[in-house]
Parts: sequence; structure tokens; C-alpha cells
Amino acid sequence: MAQKPSIPKGTRDFSPVEVVKRNYIFDTIKGSFQRYGFQPIETPSFEKLDTLMGKYGDEGDRLIFKILNSGDKVKKADLAALKDGNLAKFSNSLSEKALKYDLTVPFARYVVQHQNEINFPFKRYQIQPVWRADRPQHGRFQEFYQCDADVVGSESLWQEVELVQLYDEVFSNLKLEGVTIKMNNRKILSGIAEVIGASDKLIDFTVALDKLDKIGEDGVKDEMLQKGISAEAIEKVQPLFNFTGTNTEKLAQLTKLLKSSEVGTKGVEELSFIFENIETLGLRSATLDIDVTLARGLNYYTGAIFEVAAPEGVKMGSIGGGGRYDDLTSVFGLKDVSGVGISFGLDRIYLVLEELELFPETITNTLDILFINFGEAEALQSMKFIASLRAAGKNAELYPDAAKMKKQMTYANNRNVPFVVIIGPEELTASNFVLKNMQSGEQTTYAFDDMLKVLGKSTTL
Amino acid sequence: MAQKPSIPKGTRDFSPVEVVKRNYIFDTIKGSFQRYGFQPIETPSFEKLDTLMGKYGDEGDRLIFKILNSGDKVKKADLAALKDGNLAKFSNSLSEKALKYDLTVPFARYVVQHQNEINFPFKRYQIQPVWRADRPQHGRFQEFYQCDADVVGSESLWQEVELVQLYDEVFSNLKLEGVTIKMNNRKILSGIAEVIGASDKLIDFTVALDKLDKIGEDGVKDEMLQKGISAEAIEKVQPLFNFTGTNTEKLAQLTKLLKSSEVGTKGVEELSFIFENIETLGLRSATLDIDVTLARGLNYYTGAIFEVAAPEGVKMGSIGGGGRYDDLTSVFGLKDVSGVGISFGLDRIYLVLEELELFPETITNTLDILFINFGEAEALQSMKFIASLRAAGKNAELYPDAAKMKKQMTYANNRNVPFVVIIGPEELTASNFVLKNMQSGEQTTYAFDDMLKVLGKSTTL
Repeated sequence: MAQKPSIPKGTRDFSPVEVVKRNYIFDTIKGSFQRYGFQPIETPSFEKLDTLMGKYGDEGDRLIFKILNSGDKVKKADLAALKDGNLAKFSNSLSEKALKYDLTVPFARYVVQHQNEINFPFKRYQIQPVWRADRPQHGRFQEFYQCDADVVGSESLWQEVELVQLYDEVFSNLKLEGVTIKMNNRKILSGIAEVIGASDKLIDFTVALDKLDKIGEDGVKDEMLQKGISAEAIEKVQPLFNFTGTNTEKLAQLTKLLKSSEVGTKGVEELSFIFENIETLGLRSATLDIDVTLARGLNYYTGAIFEVAAPEGVKMGSIGGGGRYDDLTSVFGLKDVSGVGISFGLDRIYLVLEELELFPETITNTLDILFINFGEAEALQSMKFIASLRAAGKNAELYPDAAKMKKQMTYANNRNVPFVVIIGPEELTASNFVLKNMQSGEQTTYAFDDMLKVLGKSTTL
Repeated sequence: MAQKPSIPKGTRDFSPVEVVKRNYIFDTIKGSFQRYGFQPIETPSFEKLDTLMGKYGDEGDRLIFKILNSGDKVKKADLAALKDGNLAKFSNSLSEKALKYDLTVPFARYVVQHQNEINFPFKRYQIQPVWRADRPQHGRFQEFYQCDADVVGSESLWQEVELVQLYDEVFSNLKLEGVTIKMNNRKILSGIAEVIGASDKLIDFTVALDKLDKIGEDGVKDEMLQKGISAEAIEKVQPLFNFTGTNTEKLAQLTKLLKSSEVGTKGVEELSFIFENIETLGLRSATLDIDVTLARGLNYYTGAIFEVAAPEGVKMGSIGGGGRYDDLTSVFGLKDVSGVGISFGLDRIYLVLEELELFPETITNTLDILFINFGEAEALQSMKFIASLRAAGKNAELYPDAAKMKKQMTYANNRNVPFVVIIGPEELTASNFVLKNMQSGEQTTYAFDDMLKVLGKSTTL
């Protein structure tokens, strides 16, 4: 007997139940994207190699899946490079295309390529798989979906306001209440760097500050000193070590702290605009929180920075993130296109919903009604009813074979179907059917004429 | 100025309008799949190389996109094979994974790998992209979607009946009326081969017979003689040259013609079962038609063969096809799993709907209401209304910047939005808004209190 086939490490098969649950998340996100005026685009799975290479740093470049040239083209293999141990050059001589590594670079390429057809400001969403040659490990996959919404072509801060509302709406609709939308601003970080007099130490500074909860004020300060940040500089930003209170209080502290920095003051103003308007407009279930340690994609974002944390008590990294960037498309030759966007971390959201049992129970009922098969005449009668139930929007099917009742009922149980209809020889003669409620086990006999009345409207009875 | 970036030949970007139209087709197909009790699965974009190689013939093998091994693994390049000109061997030494070429082989792999978790008979659907290194040319792409529905684990002919109904339902729901569902049966073809006494000539026979409309009976017979089919054999199947009339008449002719062939007789019985039951159950807008020249996937199908032709007058190859196979999973070590399935040709269906102008006009209205931006105070008031309109299910947005009215209205026009709301300084003071119907140009003033009443329910007014 042959060995069972398998799939590459780091990839996944999705069973019906998993696809249905994933689609529930996708559809919820998509619905909100659309109500917020975002439009879908799709880009190819693979791009030209030079569209992707050099955009993600050296480590990113290494994780890009390259597609081997077809046919005769492999003759062009650069054997000298192989001999010299220049494996990257050797690989590039064998490949012209690569699987996309994220949705952002292909989106930037799309905007530049189609700039004359696009109606700016362009609000686009994109939900597609991306691929990374990461070492497969628990919870890290070589193929996974990204869900991104971005607006390009406007610097308006109303976009940031809207993206906070969008996060709140999606997570509220998923019944995932209590998420925290953390916000920072690149300009505030630049202001802090100015105040401490060391832009090159900014990452060390924020990394240390982020440990405040764990190692306390003294621990953080020790780490900063070790990293070469002067005691004087640390003294200047002392308020950040007691950075608590309401967002209004935090903003007041930042205003004071950064008043000597023009860029820092601009950052505080931007954040204030967003907070004040969100305060007025309200959020359904999320909390907005200033976090000056938030520095994701530091070299990339130029304004707002977002990150979403799962509700307290759930151990999970961020379930969403994003920010504003001023220079997305210049790498492809189009300057001065400001953009701001957010993304949703599908796989983590899935795990959180699973852990908190937030998937609606009914979504995995992929079949509403199963008709038991007793043979040709009964099956034909059943098929007539099935046609009208489907026309009424129900998911219905006939068990394909006139197998033993037990086998058919086992199928019904495994399929998790709520209702089974039995039309055997007796029922056919009497023009009636037995309806079995699979949860209660209750069986009721109805006349043929009542089929649609009983099952056509609501299958919850 | 840098050259505009571009995508690999044979791939496509999909603009918002194209994605929306494609999703309309996908959603229609998916809805029917679900009402028929099919469940979704998804498999990875790439499979292990040996899962795919050798399954599609030599030509297919050549068209499989291989993924270049990452990092140090390229050191294992088989340079001897390259030197010998054995490029396939050289390529295989550089690759362990490949992009999937169709959905059928990965499905077979899935069934075998997960056989212990699957609830048979297993009705699955799968809508995912596949990749082929075909020479790019008009209408042929290197990346395209397949939409497949299959049932495995039952030999019941009710499945074939149901798949005919499914084709009819999908095309009827797409308003694509008048398609022809052509059917044949592999066993009938085997029967014909028996009767003409030459199984090896079967393909030549059907190819020639298929030209009956174009070159007439004599032309077809000449071609058959040239291909080495004897005059005596041709004489035996004379009825196939006048193979017209109703399906009932065709079945009667076939019964007579194939009565000496056991397998042929079985094929006619199977086809009769399907026809008779479809006759009783009825079709909404499609026509079912016996076509004995239909021989797609001859080496693969063992029973029913389906192919769907676009309505008369539309020049387009088949827009769907499928059939029954008895040996899908044996290549992966699992014997005796019979299956039957159909697929929909998305790209061709898209072209047909475009040609016949069958896409609903409203689906490309991705925005229901645009609010004009006059500045901070007016924008905030607009954002409050936008929140309630979104809660009522409307797609609404604020133009992000307080740009000139003309610019904002140009955006609205390009966005194809049916309604624009204007809340300027005067309206804000008077607590009212101007609603502009973008189609008629008509402007009406309403009180703030009437916002939801006017726009929240139906945007067609």
C-alpha cells in the first residue's frame, strides 16, 4: 500500500468547517470594507522578480518564493555564480517571477501602473494569499491570507478617524468585544528622538520603554543607560515613565513634553484630531488607547501608527495593524502619493474567535435538510420537493443511494444536519412525509402539501 | 523617470469593476453549490512536486510551474543532468514544490490524505486559482480560477441528475438562458468502438463525426475511411449519421445500434435514467442534449460526460464540463472511489455575460452615497450621518478633503455614485441637507431628521 500523500510543510488543507469559519471572518471584514466605500482589487499571485526584490530588506528577499523558469530557459543557469558560492545570483539566473510576499508592494505597483485609470483618492481593499519561505513552525505558515484596506491620494486625517471606526465595526460585528486599538504617530516618536537628542537611539528607547510593565521604571532606565542614552536625556522625558491616565491627559502630557519639537507637536496635533473626533463619534465596543511605545514598521510609517490587541486575557500578538506612509509608490517612480491603511490578521482572529467560542453555532450547518433514499420512486418524489426547497433558498439534498437506514442516518449525524425527511413506500402511497428533528429526535408526520410550509421558511421551526 | 512597472505576461490585475463582476459569478455559483449540499474545501497553492508530476501527461508536466528551492538547497543542482541536456532532471533537482495545475489532483490527494475524517459520500466544491506555464496568448492565462463541484463515494446516477439541475440553476440565475447541456457516456463510446470493431480508432471516429455539420455525411465518411475505419464498420453505425430528433428518439436509436454490446447497452441505460428523470423534474432555461461526439477527457471519464455550450449565436468554446470517473484516487493508493463532478469556466462565462450585457447594472455601484466635504465642522456632522447610514447597511463615505466642489463632484461621477449629500455651512446652520440625484441631476433639500428616512432604506428612492 502506498504511503499516504501529504502537503508541503508550512501549508494547510482547509476542511469544510474551517473554510466556512474563515469565510465568516472574510465576509464580515469584506462587508465592512464595502460599507466604508472601499473597492476590491486583485493582483496576480506572482510578480516579476524585480518588482519584489529589494523591497523587504535582506531577510525579506531571502524569504521570497521564486518560480523556476520553464523549459529551455533553465539553460541560462549562472554556473559561475554557483561555483563562487553566490547562491542568490545563481537563483536569480533561474527565475524571473516570484510569489507575492505581501499585498502592499503589489498594490503600490498597481497604483503606479494604473495611475491614469484610478479615481483618486483611491480606497481599495484586497484579500488574497501571500507566501513566505519562513521556516515552518507552530502558527507560522508559508501561505496565508492578508486582508488590507488602504486609501491613497489624500492626506486627510478623516481617513485615520474612519479606519479606527472600521476596526471597531469589524470586531464588534465579529462579537469580539473589548479589543484595544493602540495608536501612536511617527512624528511623536521623531519628537521624542529630538528631545532625547538621539534619533539613532529611538528604537532602543522604545524597546526599553515597552518593558515598563515587566521590569519597572528603574529597570527600563538601566537598560536605556546601557544602550548609551544619557541620564540627562532620560530625565527630559520623565513623564513617559508615568504615562497613564485618560487619552486627554496623555495628550496634554505629550503636548508639554514635545513643545520644543516642531515635528513632535505636529504629531500630537494629528493624534488629538483623531481622538477628539472618535470621542465625539463614539465606538461600539473597542477602546482607543495612546501607546508611545508603538513603533511597528518604523522606517515605513510617517504618520499614524495602529495596532490592535485582542481582549484582555487572550494571549495573542496583535490581530491588526497599519499606519500612514508618504512614500509608498516612489520606488516605482510615482512621487507624493500619501496613503494610510490597516490590515486584519486572519489566522490570529480565527484562533481568538475559536478560543472565546465566538463563531456562530449555525454557520457550520452546511446542509439544512437531508432526504432519505428508499429507491427510485421515492427518490424521484423527494427530488421534486428538494427542487422547491432549493428554490426557497434551503440547502437540501437526497442521500444518493438507497442504502440501509442506519448508514444514511450516520451520514446525517456526521453532516450535522438539523432535519431529515423520510419518504418511504408507505409515505409515498399516503402522500405524506416524516420529519425528523435531529436535535430532539422528535418525528412528526405531515402531508405532502405542507412541505414548503413546514420546511421552506425557517428550518429552526 | 522610471519605466512604469508591469506584471508577468499571462497574468492579470483585476480592477474594482472586474472584481465585482467576477465575484457576482463566483457568488452565484457558490450559492447554488451550497443549496445543492456541496461543502467547500481549500488546498494549498503549491503541492509537493511528486504529487503533481506524472498526472497530466508529458505536455501537462511541462506546463507545471515549479518553485525554486530556497537558500542553500540550490547547491544540490544536478549539473550533470544540465550538461547532458536533461533539463527536466536538472529542474527537478532545484525544486520540491509546484503550483497546482488543476483542482482535481489536489482534491484526489485531499480525499486520500483525509479519508478517515471525511463523511462519505463527500460533496465538495472548490473555487481556487490554478497555474499553467502556457505560452501567453489572447484569452489564455497562466493564472486562472477553476470552480469545481464533485461527489465522491457513490455510484448513484441521481448525482448526474443533480449536476444537470445544478448547471441549469447556475446559468438560469446568471440570466444566461438557452445554454445547451450536452451529454454522452463513456460506455456508449466503448459500445460504438465495439460495434465498429476498432477501439483504437474511437477518437478518429468521434473527431470525424463531430464535423458532420460542416462537411456533410460523405465528407465524414471519407475522413473515416482515410483514418483506416472500414466501410463495413461505418455501415454498422449508419444511424449516427442521421442522429437527430428528440432525446427519446436518439436513445431509441442508440438502444438498437448498441444492442450487441453489453457495455454500450449499459451506457444507454445510464443516459436514459438521467434523461427520464430530468424530463420529469424539468429544467428552468437550459436544454439537455445527447451528443455522441462528445469525448472530452476520454481516458479519464468512465461514465457520464458533460459539456455546456453557450447560447446559440455566441461564439465561445464550452463554458463548463465534467463527468464520472471511477479511479480518481487510486494513484494515491485508495481504490474503488467513484466520483462525478462538473466545473464552470469562469473566464468564458465572464466574456459571455459581458457580450450579452447580462451583468446587473447595479453591481458596479460600489458606493451608495458620497458626502461632500466643506471643512471640519460640516465633515464631523456628515460623519455622524455616515455612521448611521452604514449601520443601516449602506455604502457611504465622506470625501476626505475639503477640496473644490468641482473636484469632489468629478470624483462622485467617476465613482458612479447614485447620490451625493451636501452639508455646507448654510445647511449646517439650518440643520438640513441637499440630496443630489446624480442620474437626474435633481437637487432636493431635506431636514437632518429625515436623513435615514430618505437614504437609509432604498437608495433607488
